[in-house]
Amino acid sequence: MQKIKGTLIPIGGNEDKGIEADEMYTLEFIDEGILFHVVKESGGVDANIVVIPTASSIPVEVGENYVTAFSTLGCKNVTVLDIRSREDSETTNAINLIENANCVMFSGGDQSKITDKIGGTTIHTILTERYKNDDGFVIAGTSAGAMAMANEMIAGGSASESFIKGAVNMYKGLGLIPELIVDTHFIRRGRFGRQSEAVAKFPNLIGIGLAEDTGMIIKNGNDCTVIGSGMVIVFDGSTLTHNNEKILKEGTPMTMANLTIHVLSNGDEYDIKNRSVSVLPIEAPFI
Amino acid sequence: MQKIKGTLIPIGGNEDKGIEADEMYTLEFIDEGILFHVVKESGGVDANIVVIPTASSIPVEVGENYVTAFSTLGCKNVTVLDIRSREDSETTNAINLIENANCVMFSGGDQSKITDKIGGTTIHTILTERYKNDDGFVIAGTSAGAMAMANEMIAGGSASESFIKGAVNMYKGLGLIPELIVDTHFIRRGRFGRQSEAVAKFPNLIGIGLAEDTGMIIKNGNDCTVIGSGMVIVFDGSTLTHNNEKILKEGTPMTMANLTIHVLSNGDEYDIKNRSVSVLPIEAPFI
Repeated sequence: MQKIKGTLIPIGGNEDKGIEADEMYTLEFIDEGILFHVVKESGGVDANIVVIPTASSIPVEVGENYVTAFSTLGCKNVTVLDIRSREDSETTNAINLIENANCVMFSGGDQSKITDKIGGTTIHTILTERYKNDDGFVIAGTSAGAMAMANEMIAGGSASESFIKGAVNMYKGLGLIPELIVDTHFIRRGRFGRQSEAVAKFPNLIGIGLAEDTGMIIKNGNDCTVIGSGMVIVFDGSTLTHNNEKILKEGTPMTMANLTIHVLSNGDEYDIKNRSVSVLPIEAPFI
Repeated sequence: MQKIKGTLIPIGGNEDKGIEADEMYTLEFIDEGILFHVVKESGGVDANIVVIPTASSIPVEVGENYVTAFSTLGCKNVTVLDIRSREDSETTNAINLIENANCVMFSGGDQSKITDKIGGTTIHTILTERYKNDDGFVIAGTSAGAMAMANEMIAGGSASESFIKGAVNMYKGLGLIPELIVDTHFIRRGRFGRQSEAVAKFPNLIGIGLAEDTGMIIKNGNDCTVIGSGMVIVFDGSTLTHNNEKILKEGTPMTMANLTIHVLSNGDEYDIKNRSVSVLPIEAPFI
């Protein structure tokens, strides 16, 4: 298998107005602590950062929000690339921006818009190739922007109706890290059930639930390090001894026996291939 | 170890107005499907059923609500025993009612009130002795009434702040089934984090998360069968390879590696002593 040279930074989102239907209208105020890691991994304050607010319904405001946030950290080369259609993903401007970026940052909103407007286009191909081949190239994403990194992408699903087959809606993502199913706002929105159902559907994949203001730095397409103030919940379905997802009717409560869960926090590491956890010694400093 | 002859039926609660602070003012409309099991286990419609609405702040309404619900199922011998103080737990009337009941049913509300007003009193002793020694004696409880069956009882804790040490508040329960930590309204209120923290605090115990309109029939103090329309989430901390709960400061995100989770639904069985799951064949009917 080809060694991945780029870096992924999925982030669990930050601001929650408590109304999921309004998520697409929400400005995501990413904590500077997390963005600092994005800047550092991208090479520092001189990095070319391209913000893609495609998932959002208020892309102008979201774009400005990120320019301001990155500026606060000293970054001057921040460009907003607002892709509103598949045609926008084929323009010379878009292609040039992605080819010359050190970091591409996807905003929150509706992750299906990322698939619909970017999936399979020229800039999707460039993103994928650069992620595989370019040392230090960073793709970051928060909320919808993190979820779209998966191949089997959670598109939606009620928290309160979870563990009922059919509660989660799956869609195709950008496939940057096909081993993972990524969910965000994980603790605050109580998304254990929909991630469990997603893992039951794809038990060979690993479910990742990112709390708000929390993310992972993923290197080599494999080595995950937790950053931020919250926690990451890892769902490993490879230990399941019973899983009736395939044979259940829609709307029926599920049964799963022996699902393995890890709760990871700042500095803890997860190895995707080996499905193993390395925890930080208690005396280690916050990273 | 003495064989337990009575039956416990913890139930996950039913009605959720979405405001946790108002829980103690909420009428619990238990689905008749669940109450039917309570009546059946208690010996049928002639059973003496004693309803204890002590956890509730509206005990008169809650008591009447249960009398009506049991009447709908054909039960005529339903008495409300509203214990408002420890002195109320020592009256001849209370003692006689508990001694002659086939079933005692604890309502929802604030589980700490059950501990404060009944824990360590004469009727607590009678309940415990009858549960151990009397074939067919049933203790049922919904929401707070189910949580109080534990010894290490969850008294409260925010869902959104969970997986942060100190988010869960523990208190002493009635200790009827000391092997379990019971939580309720589990899916709708997103209580995975507080149950995980409770299990991290007491990793030798088994965490049980009951969804609304869902319960378990527990026989021999060991053999659990899931009833109702939702699911029961079981947290087994005995597989943990890392758990930093003991050494963490309050307010710090937790790390737990290799927590085992089971998702059980109607008809599935759990053996407490062996920590093992027996799942229902898919073709089995709803019980």
